Amino acid sequence: MTDRAPLSRLSLNQRTTASWSLPEAVQGCVDAGLGAIGIWREQLAEVGLEEACRLVAESGLRVSSLCRGGFFTYPAEAQSAEASNREAIEEAATLNAATLVLVPGGLPPGDRDLEAARDRAALAIGKLVPYAHELGVTLGIEPMNPIYAADRGVISTLGQALDIAERFDVTDVGVVVDTFHVWWEPGISDQLLRAGPRIVSYQICDWITPLPADTLLARGMMGDGHIDFTAFTRSVAAAGYRGDVEVEIFNADLWAAPPAEVVDTMAKRYLELVQPYLAE
Amino acid sequence: MTDRAPLSRLSLNQRTTASWSLPEAVQGCVDAGLGAIGIWREQLAEVGLEEACRLVAESGLRVSSLCRGGFFTYPAEAQSAEASNREAIEEAATLNAATLVLVPGGLPPGDRDLEAARDRAALAIGKLVPYAHELGVTLGIEPMNPIYAADRGVISTLGQALDIAERFDVTDVGVVVDTFHVWWEPGISDQLLRAGPRIVSYQICDWITPLPADTLLARGMMGDGHIDFTAFTRSVAAAGYRGDVEVEIFNADLWAAPPAEVVDTMAKRYLELVQPYLAE
Repeated sequence: MTDRAPLSRLSLNQRTTASWSLPEAVQGCVDAGLGAIGIWREQLAEVGLEEACRLVAESGLRVSSLCRGGFFTYPAEAQSAEASNREAIEEAATLNAATLVLVPGGLPPGDRDLEAARDRAALAIGKLVPYAHELGVTLGIEPMNPIYAADRGVISTLGQALDIAERFDVTDVGVVVDTFHVWWEPGISDQLLRAGPRIVSYQICDWITPLPADTLLARGMMGDGHIDFTAFTRSVAAAGYRGDVEVEIFNADLWAAPPAEVVDTMAKRYLELVQPYLAE
Repeated sequence: MTDRAPLSRLSLNQRTTASWSLPEAVQGCVDAGLGAIGIWREQLAEVGLEEACRLVAESGLRVSSLCRGGFFTYPAEAQSAEASNREAIEEAATLNAATLVLVPGGLPPGDRDLEAARDRAALAIGKLVPYAHELGVTLGIEPMNPIYAADRGVISTLGQALDIAERFDVTDVGVVVDTFHVWWEPGISDQLLRAGPRIVSYQICDWITPLPADTLLARGMMGDGHIDFTAFTRSVAAAGYRGDVEVEIFNADLWAAPPAEVVDTMAKRYLELVQPYLAE
């Protein structure tokens, strides 16, 4: 990194400030002095790809991730998922996003074969690789907390995500490391070292208890929960990661707060808990 | 098993019928034709150990587990935990329980060092082994779903539980395999095979979605959720397990239902989803 400003590697994932449109989020990042933004496809669609590219270019922000592709596990929707993922790859290429985040998908209704669903996800990723390679996009497999194994993400550990990613070239398929999903994983620091250059995104938020009732909105601001961001960040840095640090918090209370205040809080927490432990 | 009656290996864990006292639960098991009961220390204390032994002996039931010891991770309570665990070992010996279930414990307030907490749990288990050995009790380490990693059980996978158990003699330390906790674990069938004779308890209940608001009461009746009991039970049987199958469901709706009906439902589901896949 040539820019040594303290927030230069901090990125706002749009889901943290869900009420902001893409133009508002871009402006919010600029106002706060962040270096990057993680863009969601739904909000991208609202402004269109061309306008989004113009906004991002004008802002000087990097696009740390495009969220998200994936949802590979539902046989009835395999074709539409592939089409949607190819479109997402095109968007990621145009935005020059560091990665396209892939959420694996859960078990189809009434289907209890978790292993088969995992195999479908791995196969579907393989099918996307040539197109991603052609467009210069690195796919990022996101292992998800087992709390979501049934209904959202059948890939449950960083180790399991790496088992899939390592079948492909490192420039084509990487892993998304989100503290919420893998903070508890036995041997996580070894898995991060194993991942090394495969880490294409470092996403942060906290694990809070008691867990909020809606498990999809169960994430907390860094420092409000149980995750040791010092140790985790040191391991990510030791693995060689030099990319952006994206704050992605799904939380109803945060969504009800003024977005600029949320960005302010996340920047403070980042400076206190994460930034000092990132290698430069 | 000499008794080939279809419910001979089914056990009612007392938490499934939380409103029943120990005498009521024993009678409920006998009335339903079950072979065993999993006893909780709180309800044991209500009637006293001597009376409990008399009731159990008279009923002909096996005690598939005593729940529970553990909670090793809180430094401020280490001494009282050890005393309580020694008492639990004595109770398990007197009741001739197949195992004393050990719940590891979570992170102390404000403490974020998960690895250190895991180490404390392993050390504390080692301290209990000589006494358990002397009294002929097999300790059962229960790996817990990562949803509880922060506040209840820092040992998160069967693989991790086995890493600890294997430091000790197989008759002294085993593992408790609860479908709710490990159904999602990558490579679970291999871990079950690895466990082999270390499996001292097979507990069943389902993973349901959406997850109920209170995560401690988030368990479902077998068949109501996403777990493939056929595949899981076959793996447990292939590992050589020939013990009881304990139904342990923490669920507010079930607790509000008449306990005898709950036992009836669980017996039906067991006969349909589990019993055919148990080796005899």
